[in-house]
Amino acid sequence: MNQIDAAFPALADSTRRRVVELLGLGPRRAGELAEETGTSASGMSRHLRVLLEAGVILDERVPDDARLRVFRLRREPVLALQAWLDQLQAHWNEQLGAFKSYVEDDERP
Amino acid sequence: MNQIDAAFPALADSTRRRVVELLGLGPRRAGELAEETGTSASGMSRHLRVLLEAGVILDERVPDDARLRVFRLRREPVLALQAWLDQLQAHWNEQLGAFKSYVEDDERP
Repeated sequence: MNQIDAAFPALADSTRRRVVELLGLGPRRAGELAEETGTSASGMSRHLRVLLEAGVILDERVPDDARLRVFRLRREPVLALQAWLDQLQAHWNEQLGAFKSYVEDDERP
Repeated sequence: MNQIDAAFPALADSTRRRVVELLGLGPRRAGELAEETGTSASGMSRHLRVLLEAGVILDERVPDDARLRVFRLRREPVLALQAWLDQLQAHWNEQLGAFKSYVEDDERP
């Protein structure tokens, strides 16, 4: 499964998008994410598992305390989604360009 | 519901993403989309309804034949998704910038 196929379903949920926004601001622990999104610990744990499996986030042990994990946003899926949207935009601009030259050709005396 | 909340679930399906890619190349009829994606007519009709309701695409009657409809990609949700991703990128770059000046400050004699 490629990045796009994994990322879109993972981001189809508004709580998970909020988690991604929060992790965009910096790494956080599961408890912090649960609190900031008003989600139960078990609910947050499920959302984090979906995001981890989709490769949208990663988790790291805190070096000084192996029991603690922090979650981080991965850059790759964000770049893959941007590339997908940029591709759509590029085709669009090509079509606009083709239409423009067609109109301009037509306007020539 | 905003554009982002509507667009992500609509794009969580790979056939619907393929439809969006095809409509990015130009307007198409339902039959053409069904054929190009190897989907049944009724399956395509369901996918198009989801995309229409999410505001990702629009449909237009062909002026010369009111029975014919063509589907078109809407630009707004694509721009909204790009803005959401750009925002994530911007926060990231801020963090990198902050980290860089922290390191540079530390290196000063």
